[in-house]
Amino acid sequence: MKVSARNVFKGKITALVDGAVNAEVELTTASGDTIVAIITEGSVKSLGLAVGKEAVAYVKAPWVMVLVGDADVRFSARNQFAGKVTSLTKGGVNAEVGIELPGGTVIHAVITNEAVLELGLKQGVAATALIKASHVILGVPA
Amino acid sequence: MKVSARNVFKGKITALVDGAVNAEVELTTASGDTIVAIITEGSVKSLGLAVGKEAVAYVKAPWVMVLVGDADVRFSARNQFAGKVTSLTKGGVNAEVGIELPGGTVIHAVITNEAVLELGLKQGVAATALIKASHVILGVPA
Amino acid sequence: MKVSARNVFKGKITALVDGAVNAEVELTTASGDTIVAIITEGSVKSLGLAVGKEAVAYVKAPWVMVLVGDADVRFSARNQFAGKVTSLTKGGVNAEVGIELPGGTVIHAVITNEAVLELGLKQGVAATALIKASHVILGVPA
Repeated sequence: MKVSARNVFKGKITALVDGAVNAEVELTTASGDTIVAIITEGSVKSLGLAVGKEAVAYVKAPWVMVLVGDADVRFSARNQFAGKVTSLTKGGVNAEVGIELPGGTVIHAVITNEAVLELGLKQGVAATALIKASHVILGVPA
Repeated sequence: MKVSARNVFKGKITALVDGAVNAEVELTTASGDTIVAIITEGSVKSLGLAVGKEAVAYVKAPWVMVLVGDADVRFSARNQFAGKVTSLTKGGVNAEVGIELPGGTVIHAVITNEAVLELGLKQGVAATALIKASHVILGVPA
Repeated sequence: MKVSARNVFKGKITALVDGAVNAEVELTTASGDTIVAIITEGSVKSLGLAVGKEAVAYVKAPWVMVLVGDADVRFSARNQFAGKVTSLTKGGVNAEVGIELPGGTVIHAVITNEAVLELGLKQGVAATALIKASHVILGVPA
């Protein structure tokens, strides 16, 4: 199976907090990256999610926010990945940016061309990818 | 009134689960498609949502994830629509894909051109559209 | 620090409702615009959010839905901003639309070119921007 999501994290569930409607699930990859997802309790049950089980997290590129410069703001987005820009493709309105993390994982973001200009994004520039936990889709081997 | 969201589902509410902050609402269309939305309890009250009431679900095209091939992964995304690709428009970075469901409904997704290549998307290919419940906006007749 | 999100609201927290996993946070800007965010309780604690504290809300342009015409539908989206189209940039698949609010704030949305045609969007047209509370990222000064 192949998915359109540009960002795929394979790993194991390392934390799971239940709520009335939603649950918060933390997944840790082999390279040590952790990503937090908010999913419905219905999905927790139907997927049989539990700490220690294998899972995959999917994030579409337009859901990734990019920031550069000093960390003078702290964010609610639970997932923050610091790295360097390694690819940049511009379209008419949007651009796709690749941010490589220290462990080699590349996060892909689709942002507007205006944002690319404002942030001064180009190969080698340090940048951080932010992903809201509620924007992460989880999967488990069928 | 017209909306920019490419995906619009008209139907009736067939389930509603309350939580402390969020509620899970299931809507079933006349053609039998069901779509689940996570919205705030504040919206449930202000819209007067209840089982049996008419409602409309809206989903923007960039919020739709597309997958092809054998279902060797099960997903947390509550909304999964299997169909066939019936349209494909490419831009500089993104492409818009139309996936027609057996009942005739067409789901529109905006994904990257890279994803179109990787998934081998073209007219007639079987594909599934995934939509997270938290990405669905609900409306009711005013 | 610079962010790729096209929509940035600076203000103070004017309401905060706690849940088991998520919290609902309302921020009011100096110009009187209010925006509601759904974030995890983990973020509420780590950011030290409380009524009266300064905060910034970020919304990426693809998360904004645009509507025009009579309000014959009421929406679950907690954030609805009525204004006029002041800018429009078309790409191959997507377009970026700027909607200026009465107080001068401009909301940016990325929608498909098809939606631009269907809605008849052009400079001066009245339009409303809808943003789901779960699509808002909050930040606080570090």
